[in-house]
Amino acid sequence: MPELLRGAGVSPGAGHGPVRTVAGAVPEPAAGEPARPGDAERALAALDAVAADLEARGAQAAAAGNTDGRDVLNAQALMARDPGLADGVNARVADGVGAARAVFEAFGVYREMLAGAGDYLAARVTDLDDIRDRAVARLLGLPMPGVPESDEPFVLVARDLAPADTAVLDPAKVLAFVTEEGGPTSHTAILARTMGVPAVVALRGATGLPDGTVVLVDGAAGTVVIDPSEEQVAEAGAAAAARASVLAEPAGPGATKDGHAVPLLANIGGPKDLAAALANGAEGVGLYRTEFLFLDRAAPPADSEQEDAYRKVLEAFPDGRVVVRALDAGADKPLAFLPPPSDEPNPALGERGLRMLQRHPDVMSAQLRALARAAKGTTAKLQVMAPMVTDSGEAAAFAAACREAGIEHPGVMVEVPAAALRARDLAPEVEFFSVGTNDLTQYACAADRQIGGLSHLQDPWQPAILDLVSYAAKAGVPCGVCGEAAGDPALACVLVGLGVTSLSMSAPSLPLVRAALARHTLAECRAAAAAARTSRTAAEAREGARAVLPGLADLGL
Amino acid sequence: MPELLRGAGVSPGAGHGPVRTVAGAVPEPAAGEPARPGDAERALAALDAVAADLEARGAQAAAAGNTDGRDVLNAQALMARDPGLADGVNARVADGVGAARAVFEAFGVYREMLAGAGDYLAARVTDLDDIRDRAVARLLGLPMPGVPESDEPFVLVARDLAPADTAVLDPAKVLAFVTEEGGPTSHTAILARTMGVPAVVALRGATGLPDGTVVLVDGAAGTVVIDPSEEQVAEAGAAAAARASVLAEPAGPGATKDGHAVPLLANIGGPKDLAAALANGAEGVGLYRTEFLFLDRAAPPADSEQEDAYRKVLEAFPDGRVVVRALDAGADKPLAFLPPPSDEPNPALGERGLRMLQRHPDVMSAQLRALARAAKGTTAKLQVMAPMVTDSGEAAAFAAACREAGIEHPGVMVEVPAAALRARDLAPEVEFFSVGTNDLTQYACAADRQIGGLSHLQDPWQPAILDLVSYAAKAGVPCGVCGEAAGDPALACVLVGLGVTSLSMSAPSLPLVRAALARHTLAECRAAAAAARTSRTAAEAREGARAVLPGLADLGL
Repeated sequence: MPELLRGAGVSPGAGHGPVRTVAGAVPEPAAGEPARPGDAERALAALDAVAADLEARGAQAAAAGNTDGRDVLNAQALMARDPGLADGVNARVADGVGAARAVFEAFGVYREMLAGAGDYLAARVTDLDDIRDRAVARLLGLPMPGVPESDEPFVLVARDLAPADTAVLDPAKVLAFVTEEGGPTSHTAILARTMGVPAVVALRGATGLPDGTVVLVDGAAGTVVIDPSEEQVAEAGAAAAARASVLAEPAGPGATKDGHAVPLLANIGGPKDLAAALANGAEGVGLYRTEFLFLDRAAPPADSEQEDAYRKVLEAFPDGRVVVRALDAGADKPLAFLPPPSDEPNPALGERGLRMLQRHPDVMSAQLRALARAAKGTTAKLQVMAPMVTDSGEAAAFAAACREAGIEHPGVMVEVPAAALRARDLAPEVEFFSVGTNDLTQYACAADRQIGGLSHLQDPWQPAILDLVSYAAKAGVPCGVCGEAAGDPALACVLVGLGVTSLSMSAPSLPLVRAALARHTLAECRAAAAAARTSRTAAEAREGARAVLPGLADLGL
Repeated sequence: MPELLRGAGVSPGAGHGPVRTVAGAVPEPAAGEPARPGDAERALAALDAVAADLEARGAQAAAAGNTDGRDVLNAQALMARDPGLADGVNARVADGVGAARAVFEAFGVYREMLAGAGDYLAARVTDLDDIRDRAVARLLGLPMPGVPESDEPFVLVARDLAPADTAVLDPAKVLAFVTEEGGPTSHTAILARTMGVPAVVALRGATGLPDGTVVLVDGAAGTVVIDPSEEQVAEAGAAAAARASVLAEPAGPGATKDGHAVPLLANIGGPKDLAAALANGAEGVGLYRTEFLFLDRAAPPADSEQEDAYRKVLEAFPDGRVVVRALDAGADKPLAFLPPPSDEPNPALGERGLRMLQRHPDVMSAQLRALARAAKGTTAKLQVMAPMVTDSGEAAAFAAACREAGIEHPGVMVEVPAAALRARDLAPEVEFFSVGTNDLTQYACAADRQIGGLSHLQDPWQPAILDLVSYAAKAGVPCGVCGEAAGDPALACVLVGLGVTSLSMSAPSLPLVRAALARHTLAECRAAAAAARTSRTAAEAREGARAVLPGLADLGL
């Protein structure tokens, strides 16, 4: 009987084919190996070959329309050709250090500088390590790290995927993703949903699967079958066909089978994301992340520039709503003109979101005024919410700032556990809530979203998280959800059952969520919510809810 | 009428006297100033004078019995005399850089190395900056940073106090502490309680008080009166006398006025803290932090060494209980032989506590077995609890490991919000809970304990935190509290009213908590809990509870 492995399904669909594994870590070269004649030349040639390879991959990415990917790869190539790095290698070889070790140590100097230069640059250490590992692998004759080359389509298996691994992925070649680590908010999960590729994460033992093993991946159930039977493959194919037919259904407004309306909205980063939102039938925007307008700038954008960007989004939904999140700086999104305090030992627990806006009221009021001006003459309903609100005092202060700027519908993100626990105290101060399940889960479980090894604690199906959502949903004001949880069709039904009034997600997730809602009554959604909340674990909650949501099977979920 | 300022009272008592402010930050010397003849000599002489001053303060600390303080100061002096540092200064002056700037830049190299070397060393950056600032202040003729010199007793005012500021404080000279930043768990608060000095933290505008202004500090109410009247001073004196008489009361077991027993226990770091616990009438140990046995070592302590340390603590309370927390490594307490993953962007949300023990089951089982052996032949009730437990699965796994090692009474810390929310699911797995209010508040409010500027979000009186404590206390197993909240006499009454069954705190806090409980009935405690939980803010909760706890006034609280 074919062996079955269980992980967490984070992108629905079935994938069937041979495994290709991303090569494991390149080891640190031993320190004792002495330099041999020609080592300096060999080391520099390896760096040069790595740079050439990166440039070639950059050109390939650009040809596929991925100019961001090209820029990342070209920046890495520049680093590999850095004269200071070459000097460091030469000096070490002259001191008697072998080629691979000399490369490793020369990178160490840059690595330390970056690691010490604050969190934003520290994150670039990964890029640097990637270049170093490629050069060391060449010198030691090891397999090149990163995504394997293959002419045939394959199931990509890895410990976890980094953006650098996936920049040059050919979507036509990837049948499914399977990773040992990662959770619903990991890079792998988000990428898989965007590409429409099935994915199972947090699957222990995945990297132990030998290359070439044929597997069947079910990204809805979170399972991987080794050497599946023909029946299993056929069944999975039928489910995929059912899903495909759903995606062809007309995109009406979101509602349950019995007509309870649940507006389905899109999460966007700016006007560039509007086309995908409209194509997938979004009824408006549920989370407009305005940070992108402020990133990589020495000063805030001009008032007119802000106003233009906001107006473009409002004009896209003349009969809908647009929920804008006020600038959420700090933590992993530092801005040059609003730097977070440099010595925060835990930026995610530091001065971010509204905490930072309160220290820079001029930045906040300029943004609110630009929003109010953009809304003049447009017909969409503009709602503005503050990130990282903790208590009723903060909610009241933000609502007052909104009203002063001429914003009629102020609200707050519910992403700090204390705010969810005391939602009834915050509700009288604002017009709406929007639950950010990603951060809410991170804080309630004290588990960093960025750490793959803690992904089992980052699952929004956990009953404690459903409790918190329920407190927010029952506090007396309309309550949306804009975290990744909203894009999971089964969980979306549970959220509606908990009393959530709108759902906002990445645009590609909209059709399946719309279809899942349309196949269940509000009573069924409530039964699913009750089943999930009486469970003790995320897995029990998921199974309990699915058992009372019969329409998911029709969708191949 | 005298002006009244409000902050957060974190150490009870009244202090009356003139203000002395810790000098503000030493500015970064301008980069443009050219070197003058003799600058290298001046710079090195300034470093030498700083070193001599640090050594003199070290000798002073040692004379006062503070050998830890001396060691810190002598280590700083060594750094000031470091030959590499002197080389760095000389090289810069030779390049034409002025003396103060050369010192500043030469320190920069070390600073960067430390900052990049992981969180433990990064914290040492503060010590380094202190030496640098002293040398720069000398060269620029600025007032020396740190605690002011004074022959008369004074009220010490600062932005926040660092350990280096307070190592040489003469307790006889300090009437009270007042700081702009900091919360109940800040260094200032803990130091003040240990010294028995009244303290008010998080008081905006404190550092604006001119030196010499006479103030009356009320460390229970959290107020500072500027130029108080004679009546106000006399009243405060009477309250202090009432408190002093309480401290002379006999130390019986903890109980409410109507005889509801509430065991009062001590938080300890090892056998060295037993004397203070016994002197203050502790009925046992409610939190034995075993990390101290493991810190600064290349390998875990030998089994017999662990056993000895545990037995000493168990033998000190033949009729009491000893609650041991299993090794809580990671985050701010990295161990050399159990290093946390080096690239955690937020260590407090990372692999710490039970999460790390699960990756090192050998370390956990060695500790549990040493505890079980230590308990053989001793009569104290040994209870062992896991730190950083999130869900019922983790609780069950820890309880199983305890029972396998021969520990009869396993429990869990409740410090992750999800664990408190789902306490009813965890309770069937273990024999007891202990709520760690410090971390629980940090996570529930997403506000780092280590950041002074967020101290208002670190207040355990927040109604959301009381909600979480209540969930844990009503889950069906005995539930203690071992965070700083337990040592606040008014909050201790509230916790008992919420259903908490024992309180554990720093030993010096025990007498006032014992006295506060003895003056109120369980019904009064419950009324205080209800008043606090129906409040919307921490300040309202504090006032609401105090209004129905009449006995606090007798205690001068």
